[in-house]
Amino acid sequence: MLYRDNPLKGVPWDDFQKLTGSQKAPLFGRGRRLYHALIAQQFDRPMLERLCELATKIRQIAKTRGGLLFLQDLLREKRAMLYFAQPSTRTFLSFYNAGQLVGLHLAEVRDTATSSEIKGESPEDSVRTFSSYVDMIIMRHPVGGFAERIAWLLSNTDRPVPVINAGSGKDQHPTQALLDIYTLQRSFEQRGGIDGKRVVFVGDLARGRTVRSLAWLLTQYRDVQQVFVAPPELQIGQDILAALDHAGVHYELTSDFAQTLPAADAVYMTRIQDEWDQAGESGRIDTSRFQLRAEHLALMKPDAAILHPLPRRAEIAAEIDADPRAMYWRQVRNGMWIRAALLLVIAERDGEADRYHDDLIS
Amino acid sequence: MLYRDNPLKGVPWDDFQKLTGSQKAPLFGRGRRLYHALIAQQFDRPMLERLCELATKIRQIAKTRGGLLFLQDLLREKRAMLYFAQPSTRTFLSFYNAGQLVGLHLAEVRDTATSSEIKGESPEDSVRTFSSYVDMIIMRHPVGGFAERIAWLLSNTDRPVPVINAGSGKDQHPTQALLDIYTLQRSFEQRGGIDGKRVVFVGDLARGRTVRSLAWLLTQYRDVQQVFVAPPELQIGQDILAALDHAGVHYELTSDFAQTLPAADAVYMTRIQDEWDQAGESGRIDTSRFQLRAEHLALMKPDAAILHPLPRRAEIAAEIDADPRAMYWRQVRNGMWIRAALLLVIAERDGEADRYHDDLIS
Amino acid sequence: MLYRDNPLKGVPWDDFQKLTGSQKAPLFGRGRRLYHALIAQQFDRPMLERLCELATKIRQIAKTRGGLLFLQDLLREKRAMLYFAQPSTRTFLSFYNAGQLVGLHLAEVRDTATSSEIKGESPEDSVRTFSSYVDMIIMRHPVGGFAERIAWLLSNTDRPVPVINAGSGKDQHPTQALLDIYTLQRSFEQRGGIDGKRVVFVGDLARGRTVRSLAWLLTQYRDVQQVFVAPPELQIGQDILAALDHAGVHYELTSDFAQTLPAADAVYMTRIQDEWDQAGESGRIDTSRFQLRAEHLALMKPDAAILHPLPRRAEIAAEIDADPRAMYWRQVRNGMWIRAALLLVIAERDGEADRYHDDLIS
Repeated sequence: MLYRDNPLKGVPWDDFQKLTGSQKAPLFGRGRRLYHALIAQQFDRPMLERLCELATKIRQIAKTRGGLLFLQDLLREKRAMLYFAQPSTRTFLSFYNAGQLVGLHLAEVRDTATSSEIKGESPEDSVRTFSSYVDMIIMRHPVGGFAERIAWLLSNTDRPVPVINAGSGKDQHPTQALLDIYTLQRSFEQRGGIDGKRVVFVGDLARGRTVRSLAWLLTQYRDVQQVFVAPPELQIGQDILAALDHAGVHYELTSDFAQTLPAADAVYMTRIQDEWDQAGESGRIDTSRFQLRAEHLALMKPDAAILHPLPRRAEIAAEIDADPRAMYWRQVRNGMWIRAALLLVIAERDGEADRYHDDLIS
Repeated sequence: MLYRDNPLKGVPWDDFQKLTGSQKAPLFGRGRRLYHALIAQQFDRPMLERLCELATKIRQIAKTRGGLLFLQDLLREKRAMLYFAQPSTRTFLSFYNAGQLVGLHLAEVRDTATSSEIKGESPEDSVRTFSSYVDMIIMRHPVGGFAERIAWLLSNTDRPVPVINAGSGKDQHPTQALLDIYTLQRSFEQRGGIDGKRVVFVGDLARGRTVRSLAWLLTQYRDVQQVFVAPPELQIGQDILAALDHAGVHYELTSDFAQTLPAADAVYMTRIQDEWDQAGESGRIDTSRFQLRAEHLALMKPDAAILHPLPRRAEIAAEIDADPRAMYWRQVRNGMWIRAALLLVIAERDGEADRYHDDLIS
Repeated sequence: MLYRDNPLKGVPWDDFQKLTGSQKAPLFGRGRRLYHALIAQQFDRPMLERLCELATKIRQIAKTRGGLLFLQDLLREKRAMLYFAQPSTRTFLSFYNAGQLVGLHLAEVRDTATSSEIKGESPEDSVRTFSSYVDMIIMRHPVGGFAERIAWLLSNTDRPVPVINAGSGKDQHPTQALLDIYTLQRSFEQRGGIDGKRVVFVGDLARGRTVRSLAWLLTQYRDVQQVFVAPPELQIGQDILAALDHAGVHYELTSDFAQTLPAADAVYMTRIQDEWDQAGESGRIDTSRFQLRAEHLALMKPDAAILHPLPRRAEIAAEIDADPRAMYWRQVRNGMWIRAALLLVIAERDGEADRYHDDLIS
């Protein structure tokens, strides 16, 4: 994409709010680059391939002490704020370590009940204050759309900084989807990449924002088949299916887990997200039929990939961890690599990593 | 000022406590430099001008990647402790980022109920332990005078380190006053500086330590007029007025806000600090008459400056943010610059910044 | 010791658990180096002397700006996780500053109720996730043996990282014992070292893991006499006495504090750890007889050393702080030096510090 410079500037908030994700996406860039990273719809196929390529280069550079020191110099003069109004040790640490890997100086606000909110400050004022000190904000917030609100707000001041969405409400968690794409791409590296593969999603598909974002990103690849395995109450939302229809994607819905395993190239397990329950409804569902157990392994292709965004409960038996198809621990680490890549792209320092890498292998 | 080396050493605590601020000030330095930074009375005009000059140099150096990397080398081998026994995300982050800007390695203790206090340790022992690891302590504490107590204590051990007061009790918050001075100085840069200006303070002047410290610092400038606008219950304290009388400063007290606006060079708005209420007394005061609203802008000079220490509630309408006279967002960022300047002065590295800056512009 | 490469790999957990500390110790190294640092039994006399020597070199290198910058480069490309599931500001800060001293990039998890645990993740999965991002884990946990469990677990994955025990349960706190050894060694530097000295332990010896670990480490020195002074209910455990018997160590048990002072080379005071009380039993014991007061000083040798792991309550009167025999504040700082030494040894960068030090003094 080629963006205007600061396209969010001057757009009235009421108009902005009425836009769809695809309409908003062009407003989050600047010139030739990604500026804010807020929604899955910003990541078209060239951008996805670029980020995966860059993540792999970073991973290779990081194999030596000299390479690690080089990476630390890339964003060394910059400061970022990790503003996590919703607790998330996992995503927090992934961004934190990705930032440290590329030299970013990080400050954090992890508490929701910060003193300023107690003192009656608006959330917008709080985040604007935090942004005053830094070059970038990485934020998680329980309110859907809040990161977009901040991006819009800062873009309409005289000191905008990029905003990265590290999870907002039940809605978007785009960097989780990026690391899933990167894990799939690495898993299928020797098999022609993601195009043409069959991806089976299992579990709580109604409330897992991870699956929602990933299902959308997979529409950017050719001939990917998507299979949604869930109890009827937790099936994937109609809005996602409408987006898949619109993109001409082949998909299937079922509640028969075992039957989907033989043809699957990737099995994406998810946790029942009962923290979103309103009246304990998850407890009334038999979720044991949506768990991957050791006896399932024999049903699966020998080169299939098993993913899980973690944390897991009983969805994947611990004894599966040692199976070569288990990708979920590698997936954790992929999160660090792809987030480091995203930080470099947003800060326009990815070219320096390219040059170092190319010198390294030539 | 020219100080003795470690003048606090050997001063009995009971004697020290009886001193006034002005009597204590000479005890907080060493040789030609500021050592501890605890009370507004330490900052005479030459020191204020030096800090403002240095903050501006740092700000200019920070405009390039090379300059930022230079700044990070200045205190890179040093470690500091941020000990915040009272929550304050704002001041905490300002110091944190100022420290990162000049390369300081920072550790933090933000929780009041730390394990050691649970284990029955005295607060003095706790802070002395924390100080053992570092080269500098930046501290906020709910008990007035506690930072002075720690400075006195450490100065009487064989490993003293500088103590910076980031807010103590209702009393002193000297670095907030420094950033206010720096903001006023920048606002009046083209108009002969702070001398001869008329500064209007508005709101809860009884309990805002910010106003108390700033009113005192302004006595260091020539012919500054101070106007205090507050409901009678929240007017500025007699001790401050006595200090202004002593310094021969012209001041006025009123509760008629609008009438003060036409002649004001700076309007310093403050929040009603009802967290200090003892029985909800703020709720019985009509504070709506001490709010700056859009219709007030027409009454003000075209080059007046609007300040606010933030966080704000309704004291300044959000639509005023876009007015060129609104300085409060810039004020936030000025806090980072002036605190970085203070850190360099205390660590005696300010000369290195001078030389870099002078080479840059020559 | 010479270890096998990854000797924990393939050892069944049930077998591992049945081993004694001395049997486990050889499983925690790799080749010629310490890999995990988990229990006092790993530290034989050559390793103790090496760590003390290295700590002193680091301390000497740290006296100049250039030396400090050199130290910061040693582990600069590495990242570590401080996982403190049990609060401990003191040990946390000691490791944090030791890590910063040698350039380690640190991330922290200090909260026990992290979001993932709320989401039903196993503690093993949580720590394995955190380990994915880093090169080293430093952990404190309320459950005895948990750090060993994690070391075993990670050693059986394809991405093991060293685990350092920063305190587990009532059992082991090996780096506290290391800093105590280092403090004793420095105190007796001019008197032939620790061999042949008489060490008096005072206070809550039943529940202080510090004393347990130190008593064990002192068996590595020749002719050290150990005296345990406590009320009968809080005397040292039979398991420790059995270990001392086994090592042929001379020891004495008494509840008469003053009588032990004239012959003591070191007096190691400890706090009554009533946080481990089950029914307020500490309250029924007269602990005032196990406090060091100013009048005791005259009874002690002029070159004796007074230690305390801190925090203290009334065990040592504050007026003793100024006595030259009071080593407990220096002991705090020794913790930083010896932990920095341990980090370098584990990361195999201690040779670089040796070379820098040797160039410095030659």
